[in-house]
Amino acid sequence: MKLRFVHLVALLLAALLPAGAAPVEPAPTPSAPAASAPAASAPVAAAVTPAATPVTPAEPGSLTAGESFAPADLLAWARNFGTPLYVYDGDRIAANYRRVAAAFTALYPATRLHYAMKANTNPAIVQILRREGASAEVVSDGELQLAMRFGFPPREILFTSNSKSPLEIDRAITVGAILNVDSEDELEQIAQRAATIGAAARISFRLNPAVDPHTHAKIATGVIDSKFGLHFVDGSAMRAVKRALELAPRVRLVGLHSHIGSQITEPEPFQLAAQEMVDFVVRIRRELGVKLEFVDLGGGLGIPYHDGEETMSADAWAAAQSGPLLAAREELEGELPQLWIEPGRALVADAGVLLTRVNSVKTTPIKTFVNVDAGFNTLMRPILYEAYHRVRVVGKTGGGKVVEIAGNVCETGDLLAQTRDLPPIQAGDLLAILDVGAYGFAMASEYNSRPLPAEILVRAGRPVDLIRRRGTLDDLLRGTNVPLDLR
Amino acid sequence: MKLRFVHLVALLLAALLPAGAAPVEPAPTPSAPAASAPAASAPVAAAVTPAATPVTPAEPGSLTAGESFAPADLLAWARNFGTPLYVYDGDRIAANYRRVAAAFTALYPATRLHYAMKANTNPAIVQILRREGASAEVVSDGELQLAMRFGFPPREILFTSNSKSPLEIDRAITVGAILNVDSEDELEQIAQRAATIGAAARISFRLNPAVDPHTHAKIATGVIDSKFGLHFVDGSAMRAVKRALELAPRVRLVGLHSHIGSQITEPEPFQLAAQEMVDFVVRIRRELGVKLEFVDLGGGLGIPYHDGEETMSADAWAAAQSGPLLAAREELEGELPQLWIEPGRALVADAGVLLTRVNSVKTTPIKTFVNVDAGFNTLMRPILYEAYHRVRVVGKTGGGKVVEIAGNVCETGDLLAQTRDLPPIQAGDLLAILDVGAYGFAMASEYNSRPLPAEILVRAGRPVDLIRRRGTLDDLLRGTNVPLDLR
Repeated sequence: MKLRFVHLVALLLAALLPAGAAPVEPAPTPSAPAASAPAASAPVAAAVTPAATPVTPAEPGSLTAGESFAPADLLAWARNFGTPLYVYDGDRIAANYRRVAAAFTALYPATRLHYAMKANTNPAIVQILRREGASAEVVSDGELQLAMRFGFPPREILFTSNSKSPLEIDRAITVGAILNVDSEDELEQIAQRAATIGAAARISFRLNPAVDPHTHAKIATGVIDSKFGLHFVDGSAMRAVKRALELAPRVRLVGLHSHIGSQITEPEPFQLAAQEMVDFVVRIRRELGVKLEFVDLGGGLGIPYHDGEETMSADAWAAAQSGPLLAAREELEGELPQLWIEPGRALVADAGVLLTRVNSVKTTPIKTFVNVDAGFNTLMRPILYEAYHRVRVVGKTGGGKVVEIAGNVCETGDLLAQTRDLPPIQAGDLLAILDVGAYGFAMASEYNSRPLPAEILVRAGRPVDLIRRRGTLDDLLRGTNVPLDLR
Repeated sequence: MKLRFVHLVALLLAALLPAGAAPVEPAPTPSAPAASAPAASAPVAAAVTPAATPVTPAEPGSLTAGESFAPADLLAWARNFGTPLYVYDGDRIAANYRRVAAAFTALYPATRLHYAMKANTNPAIVQILRREGASAEVVSDGELQLAMRFGFPPREILFTSNSKSPLEIDRAITVGAILNVDSEDELEQIAQRAATIGAAARISFRLNPAVDPHTHAKIATGVIDSKFGLHFVDGSAMRAVKRALELAPRVRLVGLHSHIGSQITEPEPFQLAAQEMVDFVVRIRRELGVKLEFVDLGGGLGIPYHDGEETMSADAWAAAQSGPLLAAREELEGELPQLWIEPGRALVADAGVLLTRVNSVKTTPIKTFVNVDAGFNTLMRPILYEAYHRVRVVGKTGGGKVVEIAGNVCETGDLLAQTRDLPPIQAGDLLAILDVGAYGFAMASEYNSRPLPAEILVRAGRPVDLIRRRGTLDDLLRGTNVPLDLR
């Protein structure tokens, strides 16, 4: 493999730079005192004890937010705000941002983090990340407009989508966001629209490096048969770059982009894809004289969803992503582009817990079902991706009974967790489903006419904030109209 | 265009076989003049011709609503209301209701149709069915409240759910709806709540006959390891009935229920399950003297999603469902209970079409992707159940190019249709995805910050009704609150 030397260089760099090895301690600031919080909060699985204060600060060293909230707090929040309830640890989100940012800037100072907003679009969550310094990566006109409303400078926003409508193209050109172009067809449309509007379109190309990221098939985006990106092997990537140069100045090529998938837990696929990208960057520099403002290597850093699971650290991710670029310094005559990355899940997933109440327990000839008041309309990941989420019984420890956690949607497939060894459970118990900060609420629906759940934000030293009220019956009917003759 | 001859044949057939090929002719009424509508409307696949009137009446003999709408109308609606757009044929919904109702009442006059509201909860759609005579089957407190708001008498409403919250139990008792009890745990809770409220709870039991319905695993509800129902084999069904008798008069057992799954296309599973249920009805009559008001044998009648597919007729379904009951007349001393059924999909699925616009077309080394402006947030069935929906290119016929219809959600799995032989497609073309009237909009979400699609209702001789306006950016933010320090 030709990449061995590059890899070695990256590892050497990581070893030689002092900040690279240790997890970066977030700088203490008034808005994120988590690092200095007392370490006394009991894990979820501990017995219920009365909480001294309404909010027990999150414990930064614990595995997930769900492990660090005190059971008494979780019980109180469920009582006060109802269930199902999404609970987010704001301090953990800030700490996650800092850890990832520090890992990258230690190796590649000119790194910018673009938060992949689709993971969790709650305005309060996004604001935490914007204040930490994140830019935004968006995937629709709605998200672009939200990002601007949240205060992201539009010229920093990258708009990625395999399928952009004319309205979406027009909006991005008009506000000056970067259109991450997915096809030659789209490139021509953008050039035409830019001419009509009378503005220059800033673009990057989404490239498909044809790397298998060893993740779930539905979220592997950079494989050869995925719908995303332009390819090297068929020459469409090079054709598109040349065409973009012809279309200048209506079209301005400012970057290249790849994103090979989500929930990736090993560095090799990142490194392979980054090398493919850098080879192409070098090639268009040499052959066409193209100088890029940035290379965006996407997101995809996985998190440990299982107890005891070891996944790639932010440092290893940073080394894999930045190594090939650093190694190409000479070939690029010292003019390295910015490195953009797009963490989403890695910043917010482990900061979210879903609280759900047990409605009833039923033993059948084969299985025992714990029926809860959330379903796949609340949390889609288990039914859609066969995703595993840890489940804790708030205030109880141990195991002893293997159960299925059954959602309340009227479909057999609605099982939020399967074959779990949990302590004895009865109606009224509160369950905490961990690591739901990403692709949790974001994918929720009102299917079965169940209003959307509420969301709260917990930060050390602050009162709990209701950041989205529970849905209502009127929400279900919004915008509907019964013709007069049917009323 | 090479399909001119086929088109001609189709028109000839339509002219020559006015009644023979058509399903049950709906009785002409003021509210459903479809049967007397001119048969001149062209199928979707025909070339675009200017529409003489804004609405071309639906053709009752055609396979689906999508086949009967005129291309010019579809193009006009897409222009006027935007895309993605759900289009429903109101006359077809009424005709579907009448066909199913007629099939049952011909064999078993005391049949009542409870519309499974979760299939499509748009108020206008529900009102069409209510006016045709349907009762309602609901699966949540939200749906129960909607059903009452829509005018269904609460005492006719059956509330089915494997997991009912205390609030849901209280509401059903208070309004007098029938609680379809799923577990012994729930039965005890209901008795307690009825005592506290001081009212009698009317209940039925959901029973699991352990029959394999040969459908998709995620929607097979009556198999032995499903989360639904009480079982015969472990004695829990009988125990529950006896316990209900002990709990009288706080609890009043008025019916038994089973529902073995959805999209079932053969009569045998229905017949097997119905026989199991009737055997139990006879047994509790003999052993315990229980007389039931109704036996609810659920829904599940499949529809043909593929071209040329033959599925069970409503008549065959009615025979399978009612046969065992009719055969038990003597054993029940001539006192047959009402037969309730719960069609959802069978009433509304083929009446709905999703219109989506092509944004771009991309050929990659392996596949050609047609990128459209809908995604799995608009239509969940393809990604969730690997469901097949026919796709038509509005105004084009034939085939010649195998393509993937790629949704606009930023996930590899978001393919609305795979490996379809379609006529050449280009950006701006309009696609019609057929048979989406059930579990289409009902399962839609705002994932990727895309507002919900609009819905329109088309009925012969009436102007088109916008029955749900397109979602807005403000919809995405409804109920959110950014803490002051994060603004």
